[in-house]
Amino acid sequence: MKKENFQMKSHWRKIDGGVCAPLGFQAASATCGLKVSGKSDIGILSIEKGANAFGVFTKNQFAAAPVIHSKNILSENIVLRGVVVNSGNANACTGRQGLDDAKAMGSYCEDLLKAPQGSFLVCSTGVIGRPLDMNKVRSGISEAVPKLNEYSGTEFAKSIMTTDTFLKEIALEVSLEAGTIRIGGCSKGAGMIHPDMATMLAFVSTDLGLEADFQDEFKELIQLSFNSITVDGDTSTNDTCLLFASASSQLHYRSLSLGDKRIFRDALFEMFTELARLIVKDGEGATRFAEIVVRGTKSTEDARKIGRYIANSKLVKTALFGGDPNWGRIICSLGTAGVLLDPENVSLTFEEIPVFNHGKPLSYDLKKLEEIFSRSEYRIFIDLAQGDCESRVWTCDLSYEYVKINAEYTT
Amino acid sequence: MKKENFQMKSHWRKIDGGVCAPLGFQAASATCGLKVSGKSDIGILSIEKGANAFGVFTKNQFAAAPVIHSKNILSENIVLRGVVVNSGNANACTGRQGLDDAKAMGSYCEDLLKAPQGSFLVCSTGVIGRPLDMNKVRSGISEAVPKLNEYSGTEFAKSIMTTDTFLKEIALEVSLEAGTIRIGGCSKGAGMIHPDMATMLAFVSTDLGLEADFQDEFKELIQLSFNSITVDGDTSTNDTCLLFASASSQLHYRSLSLGDKRIFRDALFEMFTELARLIVKDGEGATRFAEIVVRGTKSTEDARKIGRYIANSKLVKTALFGGDPNWGRIICSLGTAGVLLDPENVSLTFEEIPVFNHGKPLSYDLKKLEEIFSRSEYRIFIDLAQGDCESRVWTCDLSYEYVKINAEYTT
Repeated sequence: MKKENFQMKSHWRKIDGGVCAPLGFQAASATCGLKVSGKSDIGILSIEKGANAFGVFTKNQFAAAPVIHSKNILSENIVLRGVVVNSGNANACTGRQGLDDAKAMGSYCEDLLKAPQGSFLVCSTGVIGRPLDMNKVRSGISEAVPKLNEYSGTEFAKSIMTTDTFLKEIALEVSLEAGTIRIGGCSKGAGMIHPDMATMLAFVSTDLGLEADFQDEFKELIQLSFNSITVDGDTSTNDTCLLFASASSQLHYRSLSLGDKRIFRDALFEMFTELARLIVKDGEGATRFAEIVVRGTKSTEDARKIGRYIANSKLVKTALFGGDPNWGRIICSLGTAGVLLDPENVSLTFEEIPVFNHGKPLSYDLKKLEEIFSRSEYRIFIDLAQGDCESRVWTCDLSYEYVKINAEYTT
Repeated sequence: MKKENFQMKSHWRKIDGGVCAPLGFQAASATCGLKVSGKSDIGILSIEKGANAFGVFTKNQFAAAPVIHSKNILSENIVLRGVVVNSGNANACTGRQGLDDAKAMGSYCEDLLKAPQGSFLVCSTGVIGRPLDMNKVRSGISEAVPKLNEYSGTEFAKSIMTTDTFLKEIALEVSLEAGTIRIGGCSKGAGMIHPDMATMLAFVSTDLGLEADFQDEFKELIQLSFNSITVDGDTSTNDTCLLFASASSQLHYRSLSLGDKRIFRDALFEMFTELARLIVKDGEGATRFAEIVVRGTKSTEDARKIGRYIANSKLVKTALFGGDPNWGRIICSLGTAGVLLDPENVSLTFEEIPVFNHGKPLSYDLKKLEEIFSRSEYRIFIDLAQGDCESRVWTCDLSYEYVKINAEYTT
């Protein structure tokens, strides 16, 4: 797939219910005191009849204990019973004790639900470098388990929030030729108001059956959605995205027509994309959202590399914040993005206004350009004219509020 | 050279005169109206008897016209007569016209000074993407040339400033066994208050004779000094560092004893280092200066890569600004710096206080740590315990002022 092009929206509609919208999923939350705010901080997503699970995890070498534990589980078995999540403490940089705590957190959940050992994944998000208070965690799990039901998707979504300023939850009902299936999802993002917060979690559920061989397609869709966003370029120790497929719709991906497969993939991509975009829009101190489209590269990887590099430039991000159409910063950043290019073939366009064409600055209507830069959301097109690949990256600006959030809050 | 270790300071002392302190150098400046501020914006450094010149230039693929022109000159001939610099306009992203203008700027200077064609290098710094006003440039050069003299090093240093908040100029008198030589230098830095400013220029002069084969040593010293600083991770289109060696002291590097060679190299490194540190200290909105020392890596390159990556993390830089000892951000950043490591071997120390030892968080005196973080200058030590190489990077914090400078100034 050279170009990222998904347009099948007529085949689905938004519904309520979040991660519990698909058949076979139950959720619950509890408040055990890990969050200073006194908000819910334990969430359980449970699939009584089991689900095939798929996961992608942070590439940070200091992967948190729950990441290591969950990866181990998924490497041995993908038929799982659910996931237990705590917020308020990332259980990262906590050594061997942290790993024991992550295991114990899953085991405790499994015991209460009479589920097999190693059938619950574990996620944590919050402060780095502090041991998890396991008494609190156990009391939270004890409180949540008896409350599990099919209507608490939103409660689960709330329990994973740290300093997100809004809830990130979606559910889609997808009409396939073969019948109707559902996809639900929630995420928590980069509102890292506490200085040591660690970061992105996303949970997606579906009642379509997915077999182990869906793993490659899952990873490709993740690459084009969650891996296409950047708030500040820091990859946290806890980033995790999990997909659970309960098969409770009695439909299985493997048996679908090619058309139905395409529709499902597109709907799943829409789900991932929307959850990812919500994370950027709720980025720390974000006031603007920009889509950077890089075109005309020899490979998609080149386009992604450039998009990310520019999206992470402090000079570009502060210009976005200031609403200042100083396109020279984008060209300057492009020149060091690590992809060989011919400066005389490069073009740059903001929405419909070209400012730089095949290496030459153009005259343009400054007022119009300033109007685009004053929007809360706009697109930037970069064309290298050396191939036919493209990619896009979503990012936000770098504001005073970002600095305030990350500098002023003292430990 | 595995470790960067230079300690020969007793062999030199600071003197006045800047780039004109060494014998054989003349300088002058003029005000031609390229800078809106009305300050001097044309500088000429002239060596009437010629000097061997060495240069390093930006790796940005959108290298500005004067960079392309000067590189071309140096690739054909290193015996030069000087350099002409303008500030207020970077002559970058200006297409073929820009290249013609850069050439014309050098030629005009050569004609007035009756110097051979291609004997003057050209540098520009300022706004990107606007054509150079050559009438102004010519009038500035015409004004400056008759004023050339041996006492105007400081005038030259002033003329290259854009929004630097202080003058960056040093000169050293170096006592060798063979006799006395001088090294002078000035730089302009990353005070990019105008949003499109492009960036670092440094000029170093010496009256020691240096032959073409000094090029490798020159590059190595640059790598350990100018290439060890980072303000915001953006490499500008115009970055240039030039070294001119007039041989007017009648001493030649090639004929020096090994001990004298070492002393000269160390003094030159001190010059480069000091000019580089001044640039960081005058970084946009900088309130703190941090030296990040990365140790125990398998290669110096690994150490440098890690140091730069951490120094560019927005989360780390805002933490430095806030004076918040949240070391988890440094560990988190280290984990994605692109160097394979064993998390259980990693240690982190702030000045004399270890906080993380072989993968385990330590208990420490928080008050003491907060005191270190409140300093305007301190060192951070990261040890990977997988080799015996090390490197250091100098950086500054990311403050409100940085955002203000880069967002609020409108074109």
